Amino acid sequence: MKVYGVNISPNVRKVLAALEIKGLEYEQISVLPATKTPEFLAISPRGFIPAFGDGDFHISDSSIIIEYIEVMHPDTPLIPSNPQDRAKSRWLEEYAGSVLFPGCAAVFEETVIKPNFFKQKTDDARVATALNETLPAALDYLEGQAPENGFFFGNNIGLADISVVSPIINAEFAKFRIDEARWPKMAALVKRIKAHPAFAKLLKEEEKTIMGIISGELVAS
Amino acid sequence: MKVYGVNISPNVRKVLAALEIKGLEYEQISVLPATKTPEFLAISPRGFIPAFGDGDFHISDSSIIIEYIEVMHPDTPLIPSNPQDRAKSRWLEEYAGSVLFPGCAAVFEETVIKPNFFKQKTDDARVATALNETLPAALDYLEGQAPENGFFFGNNIGLADISVVSPIINAEFAKFRIDEARWPKMAALVKRIKAHPAFAKLLKEEEKTIMGIISGELVAS
Repeated sequence: MKVYGVNISPNVRKVLAALEIKGLEYEQISVLPATKTPEFLAISPRGFIPAFGDGDFHISDSSIIIEYIEVMHPDTPLIPSNPQDRAKSRWLEEYAGSVLFPGCAAVFEETVIKPNFFKQKTDDARVATALNETLPAALDYLEGQAPENGFFFGNNIGLADISVVSPIINAEFAKFRIDEARWPKMAALVKRIKAHPAFAKLLKEEEKTIMGIISGELVAS
Repeated sequence: MKVYGVNISPNVRKVLAALEIKGLEYEQISVLPATKTPEFLAISPRGFIPAFGDGDFHISDSSIIIEYIEVMHPDTPLIPSNPQDRAKSRWLEEYAGSVLFPGCAAVFEETVIKPNFFKQKTDDARVATALNETLPAALDYLEGQAPENGFFFGNNIGLADISVVSPIINAEFAKFRIDEARWPKMAALVKRIKAHPAFAKLLKEEEKTIMGIISGELVAS
């Protein structure tokens, strides 16, 4: 199996985490976001990362890729089998992707990627909106959904957990921290998810990429 | 089962079509887009339509709702069981929702809803972008995916077909027509899907809503 993308992308991280949790072998191929070469568009029709290959079969969209991996490799399930939990898991994934992701990506892009990698000025207003509006609203909602212990659907980590923590990791690279007094269940859940061996392994690699960007070693060509 | 929304919304239509094709009983409850009352937000946390209820269980997002219906009522399957076709079906649904939908919605909102229902001026530039750029690009891509005969995944209508035709129906309410010379497979596929008894039944009801809007009988309160 091949995963196309960069390891510090929230949606690429989702797929890598799913593969690591399931203990599956894969190859990661570095492709920057918004790559529109004919070769990559043949694999990912909208140029999105992550894209995924399994032999001759290619597909993109992290949610679709992970469901495919789950169907092909059902051991260590990541998606609940109960129909209502299954739907709630997809809803949490959808919410994380469409609400949490834009807030976290704004903070990460403006304060890590733009000044260091692209040598561009930070849009302070965009950061302020994310920190003061988007992220608090998302965390308020998720605090009401988060479990006291374990993970969203019991004692085992799953796709909902992966999906929620993945964009937050990018905000944390940008020095954002979840206020433990305001969102105690979410703060504890994110810690538990990041402590999982699959995430610990991925984050060790990602920190090298982040350090390369912050040190100025990695810049846009 | 209850479906909350208006029947001329592309994503509500997806859910109604899935229920009709499966021959399931349901109740449709009229809720306008972007309804943010506390009662509705308890059912649909982002205020989106369609929302869906099955007893005490509520969920929103048309894709998630239809997967739930499919799991609970597997007869007359709408999602392929083969893992690769399953992933491709979700990709077509995702593509329809994120590329085709915005183009079709722009044409429909600007030329049907805004002037008639909201008594607002049409944004001609938005319509031109949709007609000259968004929709041709989407139809070019889909023409390469569409089957010569039958439906996307064989002889039976499925979720990919429902998802692709549903936004196009709104563009057609706004007098858009797929150019048969340029996109022959898509033009023929849309005709076959609309001729399915489930769509024929839904469209008969929808035409009453559209006529109410165009005649000026239905206006924003």
